Amino acid sequence: MEIRLGWPGSDPTPVVVTMRTPGADFELAVGFLASEGLIDSGDQVRRVRYCTDAEQMYNVVTVDLAGPPKRPPARRYGAATAACGVCGRESLDELELRGHRPLTDDLTVAPDLLRELPDRLLTGQGVFQRTGGLHASALFTSDGEQVCLREDVGRHNALDKAIGWAVLHDRLPLAGHVLVVSGRAGYEICQKALAAGIPFVAAVGAPSSIAVDLAERFGMTLVGFLRGSRFVVYAGAHRVRL
Amino acid sequence: MEIRLGWPGSDPTPVVVTMRTPGADFELAVGFLASEGLIDSGDQVRRVRYCTDAEQMYNVVTVDLAGPPKRPPARRYGAATAACGVCGRESLDELELRGHRPLTDDLTVAPDLLRELPDRLLTGQGVFQRTGGLHASALFTSDGEQVCLREDVGRHNALDKAIGWAVLHDRLPLAGHVLVVSGRAGYEICQKALAAGIPFVAAVGAPSSIAVDLAERFGMTLVGFLRGSRFVVYAGAHRVRL
Repeated sequence: MEIRLGWPGSDPTPVVVTMRTPGADFELAVGFLASEGLIDSGDQVRRVRYCTDAEQMYNVVTVDLAGPPKRPPARRYGAATAACGVCGRESLDELELRGHRPLTDDLTVAPDLLRELPDRLLTGQGVFQRTGGLHASALFTSDGEQVCLREDVGRHNALDKAIGWAVLHDRLPLAGHVLVVSGRAGYEICQKALAAGIPFVAAVGAPSSIAVDLAERFGMTLVGFLRGSRFVVYAGAHRVRL
Repeated sequence: MEIRLGWPGSDPTPVVVTMRTPGADFELAVGFLASEGLIDSGDQVRRVRYCTDAEQMYNVVTVDLAGPPKRPPARRYGAATAACGVCGRESLDELELRGHRPLTDDLTVAPDLLRELPDRLLTGQGVFQRTGGLHASALFTSDGEQVCLREDVGRHNALDKAIGWAVLHDRLPLAGHVLVVSGRAGYEICQKALAAGIPFVAAVGAPSSIAVDLAERFGMTLVGFLRGSRFVVYAGAHRVRL
């Protein structure tokens, strides 16, 4: 799916092409823009629409903003990526330049609740249950209410869809929320969570070392290997009620 | 890591930036070029070297070819990607345009051998055993000899490293070999395998639907969910001795 971005006085221009699982396409488009720091509120979105060209209609989504994006779309968006596309240190510096400050959210989560989340994620993964092939991202409140769950063949897309849901429901920044992801907590997962203001990321899989660096630097809590009765806290342990 | 490509009369130019696990960097660079169809033999590689700039030395690898690449580097390589970056149908057509013809390799593999491969892959995954966070790709002969195993945080990189090993050891095309991957068999995994001439792809995880389409169209065998005593043959069942 190609995401195009336009605003008054600027013709819509492609910013990214991503291999996605169809569904929640508008959320994916808006969520990508938010998680990449181009918008930070649903107010900035004037309209989201499919391309009207018949052949590619459902593979091109255009987001019309009310004004220019918060920063120019990066050239590296030529193709969406599981890799962050840049060296870790440069990325961390770039995030500070973008204005991200450490999250000071006073959310805390009970270990017993944490241990329940993977099963609750799995229960909601309808397409995974049929295919065994999709990733998922879900947002929970600190008392365990699941507010959004999205699936996609790409784990970054699944997260962008969940963030897009929050944008379109005026719930950004996502203070007070826990993000649970079905795979690993890579750098981009944490980068996107930070951009959306999510203070707590819990992954069924392993974190990467620069994801841990990012979490530490920006005051996020990062939990990995959340499986069975165990989990490992890699950063921000003060948000886990131990 | 940034991969730059140069040849006589052409200054080295960046073709891709990928987030990789350090190690086998030269294989990764050369394998990326081969799996993307820019080279098809080790003879075309004159030299592989790290950038001499101290700060980024080990994050920039330049491949000097003996002549121009087989086709111009695609613009979409701005960032390496888990997504294929293009719609499936267009990609399939593009592959035929690149000159790929169906693989007619008469390799066959015994089911008992297939069932052994995930454990043998895991045994060789040294970094995964320590971290729980890396993907792997391994090449086996039809009688079960493991000829190369590579790990990386990105599954496409792990495959590119294995293909790069083959390029640098003059073993392209990889007729008669079975590729085993630790994750899913997505479109790009099969696309890269096809470019390297690998007729048989076996994945511990699920295949994507367009990976199955590609395998069928290009005469490849595609096995998914290779776990425990079970596996599912999605294409090219004639290469499984049932």
